[in-house]
Amino acid sequence: MLDEKILAVLRNNRDTYISSEELCKIADISRAAVWKHIEKLREEGYDIEASPHHGYRLVEIPDSLIPAEIRWGLKARIIGREIISYKKTDSTNDVAYALGEKGAKEGTVVISEEQAKGKGRHGRHWESPAKGGVYFSFILRPTIAPSEIPIITLLSAVAVAKAIRQVAVLGALIKWPNDIMIEGQKACGILTEMKAEQDRVDFLVVGIGINVNTHQRDLPKGAISLKEALKKEGLGGSVSRLELIRKIFESIEREYNLLKKEGVSPIIEEWKHYSAMLGSRIKVMLHGRTFEGQAHDIDSDGALLVRLESGILERVSSGDIVMVR
Amino acid sequence: MLDEKILAVLRNNRDTYISSEELCKIADISRAAVWKHIEKLREEGYDIEASPHHGYRLVEIPDSLIPAEIRWGLKARIIGREIISYKKTDSTNDVAYALGEKGAKEGTVVISEEQAKGKGRHGRHWESPAKGGVYFSFILRPTIAPSEIPIITLLSAVAVAKAIRQVAVLGALIKWPNDIMIEGQKACGILTEMKAEQDRVDFLVVGIGINVNTHQRDLPKGAISLKEALKKEGLGGSVSRLELIRKIFESIEREYNLLKKEGVSPIIEEWKHYSAMLGSRIKVMLHGRTFEGQAHDIDSDGALLVRLESGILERVSSGDIVMVR
Repeated sequence: MLDEKILAVLRNNRDTYISSEELCKIADISRAAVWKHIEKLREEGYDIEASPHHGYRLVEIPDSLIPAEIRWGLKARIIGREIISYKKTDSTNDVAYALGEKGAKEGTVVISEEQAKGKGRHGRHWESPAKGGVYFSFILRPTIAPSEIPIITLLSAVAVAKAIRQVAVLGALIKWPNDIMIEGQKACGILTEMKAEQDRVDFLVVGIGINVNTHQRDLPKGAISLKEALKKEGLGGSVSRLELIRKIFESIEREYNLLKKEGVSPIIEEWKHYSAMLGSRIKVMLHGRTFEGQAHDIDSDGALLVRLESGILERVSSGDIVMVR
Repeated sequence: MLDEKILAVLRNNRDTYISSEELCKIADISRAAVWKHIEKLREEGYDIEASPHHGYRLVEIPDSLIPAEIRWGLKARIIGREIISYKKTDSTNDVAYALGEKGAKEGTVVISEEQAKGKGRHGRHWESPAKGGVYFSFILRPTIAPSEIPIITLLSAVAVAKAIRQVAVLGALIKWPNDIMIEGQKACGILTEMKAEQDRVDFLVVGIGINVNTHQRDLPKGAISLKEALKKEGLGGSVSRLELIRKIFESIEREYNLLKKEGVSPIIEEWKHYSAMLGSRIKVMLHGRTFEGQAHDIDSDGALLVRLESGILERVSSGDIVMVR
C-alpha cells in the first residue's frame, strides 16, 4: 500500500523531481524507509532516477502484470476489481476456478506471465511461454442456464478482437468458437469453464491467452503474436500489454453490460461483424466425423450453422473448424 | 482388508460356528489378532457370537453404510466401484465434486449417514438428519454437452423410483424435475452439479438424499420417510438401507447404459410412466413470475411443457412446481 502511495506521487509528477523530504511527509515514514520502498519498486522494474540534489523521478513504468499498474486508469468497475498476479502458475483458469468455488466475486482476475499447464479446449494444452504473453482468467456470475454459456465466449471474443484492433491496430478476426486470428494465424484463444446445476450456472471462468509480444520461435505452429504481426506489416515496436489488458477488461465489461441490458442479439451481430469465416468454406471435425460446407451463420445460442452440399443447414455446437482454401 | 476376509468367511458360514483356529489359518494371523479383528467388527455394529467351544458365528449385519457391506452382492459394475463412506460430512456433493476435480473415476460414490450442510437446488439447504437417512453422491463422466444434463437427473429419478418400488413396495412417483414423492410428500431429492466447458461436460455429480427410516419428528414439513409411509399404510418395519442402496446403484447403472445405447427416448418414456404430475394442474414459479397450467409433457431435453389457459404450451426448463388441488 505504501509502495502504491509513493508510486502514485511519482507518477503524478513525472515531469519533475520529488524530494525525499516530500515523500517522507506524504508517506509518513523516514528517509531510509523511503529509500527501501524506492528500491523495492526498482526491483519490480520501475526505472526511478535518484538525484542527490533534486530527489526522485519516475522515468519508466515496466510493462509487467503488476495489479496496481493494470488498475491504473482502468475504467472497468467489475472486471479487474480484484487482480491476483503470478510470474508463473500452472493454469490461471484452475486458480480462478478454485477461487470461484470459495465464493470469489464476479470480475476477479487471475493473471500470469507464464503458464506451466495452460489449458485449451477439451483438455488440450495451450502453449503459454514467458516473455511477451498475457494469460488471464476472470470469474463471472451471471444468472443464466448452462446452455446459454456460449454467448459468454462469443462476447469475450468480440471484446478481445475490438481491444486488439484499438491498441495494436491489427485486423483481428474471430474464428468460431473461440480463437482470435490475425492474418490467418492464431493470436489468442479463449476457454470458458463453469460450475453449474442443470438449470443454473453457479459461476464461470473465462480464460484468455494472447500472444502479445511473444517471439515467433517461442510460439507453436500456426500461432502468431501481435508483435510479429506488426513486423510482418512492416511496422516495428511492441504492444503495451498493460494498455491491451485494460482495454480488454473495459471491452468485456461493456459487452457484458450490453448482454444484460439488450440480450444476445447485439453481441451476435458484433460477432458476425468480426467473423473470420462466415461465407467461407470450412471443414468441421465433430465426434470423429468430418464434413465440409459453407459457414453460413451463427444462431442465438451461439451455434454455427453450416450449409452442406445438399443445401441443408447443419447446426454445429461443438467440434473443431478448419478453413478450406 | 483382513477384516473383510474374516467377515467374508463368517458371512459364508452363517448357519454354523467357525473356530478361531480356522480363522487363524485363513487370515494367517495369531489367535489374539483374530480376536482384535472380531472386536473391531463388533464396534462397527456386527453382532458376532463367540462360543468358547465352537468359535465365532455371525448373528447380524448392521444396516450401516460400510463400503464392504454396500458392495456385498452388488451387481453394479461402475456405480459404487469406489465407495467413500462418512458418519457425517458437510455435503456428499461437495466431497464428490472435489474428487471429480482430482480425476476420480466414473461411478465413485461418496456416502454419509448425516450431512451438516446438505445441498438442495439453487443454493438451498437439504435437511439431512442422522438416523435412518441415506445421502450419497456419485460421479459420472458422460461425453455430453451441458445442455444434455437434465436427462441425467431424470434418469436418476427413474432409477430411485424403481428401486423404492422394488425394495419398499411403495408407490414412489416423480415430481419434475428432481423429487421423489410418496403420497404427495417428499421422500427423496436429487441435485445434479457439473464442471463443464461450453460444449463438453468434464464430470458431473448426482447427489441423492433419501428419507429411508427417518422418524417423522426429524423431517422438515412436507417430507416423509419410507418407514413412515409404510406405517401410514398399516405396514410396520423399517427398510434395509443396504438393500435399497444396492438396488439404486444397479438401477442407475442400468438406466445409464440404456441411455448410452438407445438415447433419451426410453428414459423419457419411463419418466412419464412414473410421473406424479403429468395431466395435473400445477403452479410454476420461475424468476419471480408465477403462472398456472396443466403439466402436459416433457420434451427430449427434459424440459416440462405446461399448457396455459390460452392453450399455448410453455416450455419450462427451470423454476419450481407446486401441484394445485
